[in-house]
Amino acid sequence: MKNFKIITSKDNQLIKLAASLQGSANARKEHNLFVLEGLRICDDAISSGVIFESLIVSETAYNKYSNSIENFSEFSKECYKIPDKLFTKISDTMSPQGIIALAKMPQRNTEIKKNGRYIALENINDPSNLGAISRTAEALGVSGIILSKGSVDPYSPKSLRASMGTLLRMPLIVVENFCEDIKNSGLRVYACVVERDATSITDVTFTDGTVVMIGNEANGLTENTKALADSKITIKMSGKAESLNASVAAAISIWEMMK
Amino acid sequence: MKNFKIITSKDNQLIKLAASLQGSANARKEHNLFVLEGLRICDDAISSGVIFESLIVSETAYNKYSNSIENFSEFSKECYKIPDKLFTKISDTMSPQGIIALAKMPQRNTEIKKNGRYIALENINDPSNLGAISRTAEALGVSGIILSKGSVDPYSPKSLRASMGTLLRMPLIVVENFCEDIKNSGLRVYACVVERDATSITDVTFTDGTVVMIGNEANGLTENTKALADSKITIKMSGKAESLNASVAAAISIWEMMK
Repeated sequence: MKNFKIITSKDNQLIKLAASLQGSANARKEHNLFVLEGLRICDDAISSGVIFESLIVSETAYNKYSNSIENFSEFSKECYKIPDKLFTKISDTMSPQGIIALAKMPQRNTEIKKNGRYIALENINDPSNLGAISRTAEALGVSGIILSKGSVDPYSPKSLRASMGTLLRMPLIVVENFCEDIKNSGLRVYACVVERDATSITDVTFTDGTVVMIGNEANGLTENTKALADSKITIKMSGKAESLNASVAAAISIWEMMK
Repeated sequence: MKNFKIITSKDNQLIKLAASLQGSANARKEHNLFVLEGLRICDDAISSGVIFESLIVSETAYNKYSNSIENFSEFSKECYKIPDKLFTKISDTMSPQGIIALAKMPQRNTEIKKNGRYIALENINDPSNLGAISRTAEALGVSGIILSKGSVDPYSPKSLRASMGTLLRMPLIVVENFCEDIKNSGLRVYACVVERDATSITDVTFTDGTVVMIGNEANGLTENTKALADSKITIKMSGKAESLNASVAAAISIWEMMK
């Protein structure tokens, strides 16, 4: 097993860094680093070709998950062992497994393919929704996710966990100007809305070179964004519920676009 | 405004009851009571015809949300005001709004209609998934949800919140013997599975008198349950992901069944 350095102080720079990366999207941006916490997501990350800058494990985890940790250490530049109590300071979960890796944000291919089929998310707010949508998008073979700059951070611990690691390997294009960049993509643009007079999604024949846009959980798509769409489409509802959960609306849209 | 009695002790019987109902499905069953926490779900519950046995609000909430609380108090047999600090003892959330209602579990129509279209969930484990599925089921007009006894409690605070209150009004049939009760329902039974040789869900023509079964998040449907199905169906996947989130698999199944 690789040499694991010992850290015991909460004032150690790496501990402070890990805590700030867990809690702050700005810190992640500033350092170009993010956190992977837990066996499953670390495993997923390695499968997706991620290399860890640092692996930090609790004493308990070091003994309990020795096989997995030995494997992770092969893909990690530096390895550290810390007391369980200190680990709780850098964990994002209530019952930590005791495994955290810090990794550089991967370089992404940000090209939008003219013949691709994309899902575009405007100001998605809930990390669990972003993660779930990424998981669905990968399973159903979407070309990529276009994400407005005002959306939740795809490198937040909650997003990554909910995505089962798919956010690390899905083509993900974060755009500065959602409207303009989508308009300029050359794709046929569908706005998914909750409006009676919009076309039922079942009446659309999707072709290559398409993007379906899904809006914010509470407010839907902005008026500017709706205005740029080639077509407004809707998922017809019959019950009392006012709207579908954003990840469900995205799932049905992706399903109809890809099938 | 109705008279609000004051409670200040954490040893008060009602405080103890509220805390135990929040945390324990057994306590909810024993007392035939459940908890609604927060403005939105209390509002939803009243719209769905629920009457509160007790309304418990924090001092801050009493002043901050006086209009809503006055409205809620009209639908509540007893009303209580408690110190903010005491409220944190009975809250299920990190940042409590300060509003909790205790209500009797509604009487449910447990009849399975011969010509209905149902979604059946076997051992669903995650309250957010159950809540999300209920929301989708209502929005798309499903006749009801059939839930195996081993599933998560539909009256858990997390289930109710994720369902946006729909779990309080959706026909919900909790069955002792999932296999037998579904078999005896007389419905045409589809098992949604991740198997290459299963029929693609896009090739099925759903009719009235149908149920689609969705399994546990980690393990899917049990072998016994799969064996009873008239037909095994699958949502074809093309990406690396091994499976879809249970609430997404349910959403696509419901969508195909209802459209």
